[in-house]
Amino acid sequence: MEKRSAVILGASGIVGQRFCQMLSNHPYFNITGLFGGSASDGKKLSEVLRLPEYCISQTELLNERINHLDVGSVRKIDPDIVFSALPNDLAREVELDLASHGIPVFTNASANRMREDVPLVVPEVNSECLEMAQGKEGYIVANGNCSSIGLALSLKPLLKYGISDVNVTTLQAVSGSGYPGIPSLDIMDNLVPYIQDEEEKMAREIPKMFGSLESGKIRNSAIKIHPTCIRVPVRDSHLEVVQAAVNQDVTPGEVKEAFRNFISSPQEMGLPSAPEKPVVLREEENRPQPYLDSMAGSPERARGMAATVGRVEVSGRIIRYVTLSHNTIRGAAGGSVLNAELMFKRGLV
Amino acid sequence: MEKRSAVILGASGIVGQRFCQMLSNHPYFNITGLFGGSASDGKKLSEVLRLPEYCISQTELLNERINHLDVGSVRKIDPDIVFSALPNDLAREVELDLASHGIPVFTNASANRMREDVPLVVPEVNSECLEMAQGKEGYIVANGNCSSIGLALSLKPLLKYGISDVNVTTLQAVSGSGYPGIPSLDIMDNLVPYIQDEEEKMAREIPKMFGSLESGKIRNSAIKIHPTCIRVPVRDSHLEVVQAAVNQDVTPGEVKEAFRNFISSPQEMGLPSAPEKPVVLREEENRPQPYLDSMAGSPERARGMAATVGRVEVSGRIIRYVTLSHNTIRGAAGGSVLNAELMFKRGLV
Amino acid sequence: MEKRSAVILGASGIVGQRFCQMLSNHPYFNITGLFGGSASDGKKLSEVLRLPEYCISQTELLNERINHLDVGSVRKIDPDIVFSALPNDLAREVELDLASHGIPVFTNASANRMREDVPLVVPEVNSECLEMAQGKEGYIVANGNCSSIGLALSLKPLLKYGISDVNVTTLQAVSGSGYPGIPSLDIMDNLVPYIQDEEEKMAREIPKMFGSLESGKIRNSAIKIHPTCIRVPVRDSHLEVVQAAVNQDVTPGEVKEAFRNFISSPQEMGLPSAPEKPVVLREEENRPQPYLDSMAGSPERARGMAATVGRVEVSGRIIRYVTLSHNTIRGAAGGSVLNAELMFKRGLV
Amino acid sequence: MEKRSAVILGASGIVGQRFCQMLSNHPYFNITGLFGGSASDGKKLSEVLRLPEYCISQTELLNERINHLDVGSVRKIDPDIVFSALPNDLAREVELDLASHGIPVFTNASANRMREDVPLVVPEVNSECLEMAQGKEGYIVANGNCSSIGLALSLKPLLKYGISDVNVTTLQAVSGSGYPGIPSLDIMDNLVPYIQDEEEKMAREIPKMFGSLESGKIRNSAIKIHPTCIRVPVRDSHLEVVQAAVNQDVTPGEVKEAFRNFISSPQEMGLPSAPEKPVVLREEENRPQPYLDSMAGSPERARGMAATVGRVEVSGRIIRYVTLSHNTIRGAAGGSVLNAELMFKRGLV
Repeated sequence: MEKRSAVILGASGIVGQRFCQMLSNHPYFNITGLFGGSASDGKKLSEVLRLPEYCISQTELLNERINHLDVGSVRKIDPDIVFSALPNDLAREVELDLASHGIPVFTNASANRMREDVPLVVPEVNSECLEMAQGKEGYIVANGNCSSIGLALSLKPLLKYGISDVNVTTLQAVSGSGYPGIPSLDIMDNLVPYIQDEEEKMAREIPKMFGSLESGKIRNSAIKIHPTCIRVPVRDSHLEVVQAAVNQDVTPGEVKEAFRNFISSPQEMGLPSAPEKPVVLREEENRPQPYLDSMAGSPERARGMAATVGRVEVSGRIIRYVTLSHNTIRGAAGGSVLNAELMFKRGLV
Repeated sequence: MEKRSAVILGASGIVGQRFCQMLSNHPYFNITGLFGGSASDGKKLSEVLRLPEYCISQTELLNERINHLDVGSVRKIDPDIVFSALPNDLAREVELDLASHGIPVFTNASANRMREDVPLVVPEVNSECLEMAQGKEGYIVANGNCSSIGLALSLKPLLKYGISDVNVTTLQAVSGSGYPGIPSLDIMDNLVPYIQDEEEKMAREIPKMFGSLESGKIRNSAIKIHPTCIRVPVRDSHLEVVQAAVNQDVTPGEVKEAFRNFISSPQEMGLPSAPEKPVVLREEENRPQPYLDSMAGSPERARGMAATVGRVEVSGRIIRYVTLSHNTIRGAAGGSVLNAELMFKRGLV
Repeated sequence: MEKRSAVILGASGIVGQRFCQMLSNHPYFNITGLFGGSASDGKKLSEVLRLPEYCISQTELLNERINHLDVGSVRKIDPDIVFSALPNDLAREVELDLASHGIPVFTNASANRMREDVPLVVPEVNSECLEMAQGKEGYIVANGNCSSIGLALSLKPLLKYGISDVNVTTLQAVSGSGYPGIPSLDIMDNLVPYIQDEEEKMAREIPKMFGSLESGKIRNSAIKIHPTCIRVPVRDSHLEVVQAAVNQDVTPGEVKEAFRNFISSPQEMGLPSAPEKPVVLREEENRPQPYLDSMAGSPERARGMAATVGRVEVSGRIIRYVTLSHNTIRGAAGGSVLNAELMFKRGLV
Repeated sequence: MEKRSAVILGASGIVGQRFCQMLSNHPYFNITGLFGGSASDGKKLSEVLRLPEYCISQTELLNERINHLDVGSVRKIDPDIVFSALPNDLAREVELDLASHGIPVFTNASANRMREDVPLVVPEVNSECLEMAQGKEGYIVANGNCSSIGLALSLKPLLKYGISDVNVTTLQAVSGSGYPGIPSLDIMDNLVPYIQDEEEKMAREIPKMFGSLESGKIRNSAIKIHPTCIRVPVRDSHLEVVQAAVNQDVTPGEVKEAFRNFISSPQEMGLPSAPEKPVVLREEENRPQPYLDSMAGSPERARGMAATVGRVEVSGRIIRYVTLSHNTIRGAAGGSVLNAELMFKRGLV
């Protein structure tokens, strides 16, 4: 199949640059334009890059200039597909405008995530909801909040035990606050037990992700999420301490087996950015750790796309475990790229 | 009343040095000997000090030499009281030996904490258990694990609501692992979701702390603690995310009021190291934070002795909050000093 | 003598808050107004405080409201003295305006530092330059850049050896970039070998600080400074690695003696914020360190006011050493407070 | 040419694991044995791994067991070549023993570095000294201290200007202290201006590296190195601030050109671990930085093998610049691997 032309919005930000990383030399997509805010206007990607340069394997991309974001210009380019890492205040209108002009938009912004007509898709969790886009020329597919994605991935294999309530404490990396994001004086040798809107997002997104598609609409799951979100002095990856109440008896062995055996459509379809296993189970008592596990996932293109789960325990009908996933790869750019790969493989973009 | 002579065991370690800090120029106690391991043998306190020097307000203490630990030498000094920050393998025998020779031992070691004849006391929580020592000449009083103490302090005002189960995720500072403790390569820009024995300690200590004294013996409380302990790249203070299941309805306002109004014996008796309020309630959504709140507590001698509580919420019959306390002050040396002050004030040492 | 009324400009910033700390319960000055930018307009100091609360010993100050900065309102208050921690773009005009209206301004801003009519004073280095203010009603006294102050303090005792060239590498803490200052993503687990304008400031300020006062004007010293300034992931204190070329032979012992014996006017006059010794010499091979030495200086009011020097060596006619000083205390607020104390004690404010 | 069998000594340490990384799937060498201390005895590499697993591209290596180090067992295996990351106390004898039994040893240990019969080789700097090994069956080739290697690489292109004296301040990462290495309490939010033996090593190694080979012996260069070494809270890479005194006039443009054009034997021979450019010149004022530049070097196998130079300035006859290199790749394992590749390509192993 021919490669699709792709434009990245918000290309100068932390997530935008992860889009550049994941889409460089991509087998399905071809980057034909980078757009960003006025601060990066006309600058080369290399001039605003906050990742080590080797992350961009398609090296000529480093010399690509970032265009001033203007929805008219984007439309004029008429890409086959748009990846959006826009800030929320811009995202709402720009994404709707592009979709209404027939362009599929795969977004990491939260602005349109909860709209009734926008599927909120974690590919291994609810790819069936992409159906909502079928038949449409333009549409928006949202990927979810970084902390929701990691949690949803790890809960999915346990759904069969009937999850009612989930208590979760998140330890979230600073890259989740974007750039410039959280000031060093606020987080060096410190912890901040609050992240604006984060707990609300988790509480409302997971029920939508676990919802069922009924006559073209999503009916939210009744699952209840009780999150406490904490910013920690770590560069990348969110670690989440989870207690999931289930409504049947289950052994630790069964739970581990469920994690270990879990695969889903992206794996079955052999998508390029799909990790062999969406959840890597570790038996060591001191894992997962950001330094060791944030880039879990193979093949190389899927590094950072697997969640790692450890410390699995069961007490009564509470399953307890710790999960870790890369917040700007799996929890942001990578999630949208995988959504787009799914749609491409199904011939829908 | 005359000052009591006090000897510090394990004086060269992180907790031992906090004992030096808290006992320097103390109104009740007078340091008459420092004892430590072979590495610090004969060295001056200043030579092994890992705190800024101004922490030791009694400056001549900096020139005090650390003696080789040998239980015979300690006994020969015959101090009125011993503070122990010994490693566990040494603590068990040394502390029992000293107690059996008529010396009261206030210990931070965990070795003898769960013995039937050793009260495990957080002064604001269960000072009545000090009764167990009454009438004895020598005895051991233990203070509890750093993460247990912080949790117990914050749970105490909620006991009246009937706490059955407590789920807690701890984010623990590196000073909790002592010196040299956790290597920098393990924790810089990283998180480790496991601390050896820590969860077990919390699960067994809290029921003893909340136990009732029945005919000279402690009958453990039925409260159940479910901890997940995580090491984080922060120098001092443990932050704990708590969900406490209670058996009656309660409003957030009532819970806050309970925290705000909480005082106990140390406050009533005006002990020198007692903070005005054992629990400081913060209403800001992003507190407590280690950098801002670890030294909570006034007067100056009580800095680091108050736990700070924030983010109080109630969902159903679950009370949710975050608490923070200084692990080597409130959670270690300071806890034992306050126990000793209680005993002194009651004329029992 | 009666206390002087003092107003703090830029009170909500990092240096402004250090002014609040150092002037709370001050024996000479009485804070009568806090002024800040629009973000802190009308807020209580406690609401914008980025220091632990116990730093503000005059606790009612925590409830003081920060007024909108407006030079007219400041003038209306007509304080005896103004402390300025304004950003440079504002500082230039505001400070000149206040001085021209007869108000003495002690500033940490760099805007007016190099003006011919503004003395640039490090109290232990060139207090004689305060003479320039004598007889004037309103004037500006500048204190110098944080990295210049630390360097000047440590070079002063060596001036007698005839310093020609100084090579210096600075390792500067993040608080030096103010708030929000350097983003955590830029500095966590990282180093940035560049700080805007910093090297230029050092190169031009030291010659003025070491200049001579000739008929009311400062004639710059011929000393040459070659700095390389690096931002490091440390919260407070600048460490500077110095090689000073002198024009006579000197032994390490003599250099150490010079550091050890150094005192100056603030010490002789017994100023409240003057450290007993402006330079603390450490003989341990691994000192100074930010964690251990940033708060050097006694009495308590002078904590953070002493520079610490270590690793003194001499090779040929190059004196090599490492010095450390607290960048927002000694290198900012404290420097200006000490200047003001000097003027007060001389009866000039 | 056939692959050579290679054994790694000290395989469980930080540098040993970098040997595993760099030699996995290596085109010239085939790992046939891992040896380590008693702590890792019999464990799989994956069980002691302190690198993310994806670093080991030859995944079956993760299941390789680490043998108890015993020189007899190593000899019995009779590898074509040995890579040593042994601690110094062991290295001296073991390496000499193996060499005397006809085995070429490429070592990162410092124990034998200064021996007259051991070439101390940075491949791009003095590969001609490898001649000393020619004709011998067994021999030792040393690679130099991590901070010396980075400095030597960057000085080499400037040698033609006649370097007499080099002043250097190093900011060294914690991985340089090995594992467990520097305790987190010593370095978190802190700097330590001293690293045992480090300055001495730099001062004596650089003259040997820049020495000339005269009738089979190295005659040291007269270059003088004046280092101050500082440990900083960064995981990997050493940043060095250099002032090199040269004995001719030179412009910044010429210096940059010299850095830019620098290539040497490893590049000319197209060695697999040779970076395209041993020195990467950055013109941005805020580079090099550990996070962005530590993995400089392409192709992929050479990541972390290039030094990055920035902030080039000339004042008088002093060339000033900042250089950064990965301490455990370029400055340790990678240096030895490149030495071995050179010997292999020349048919000498």
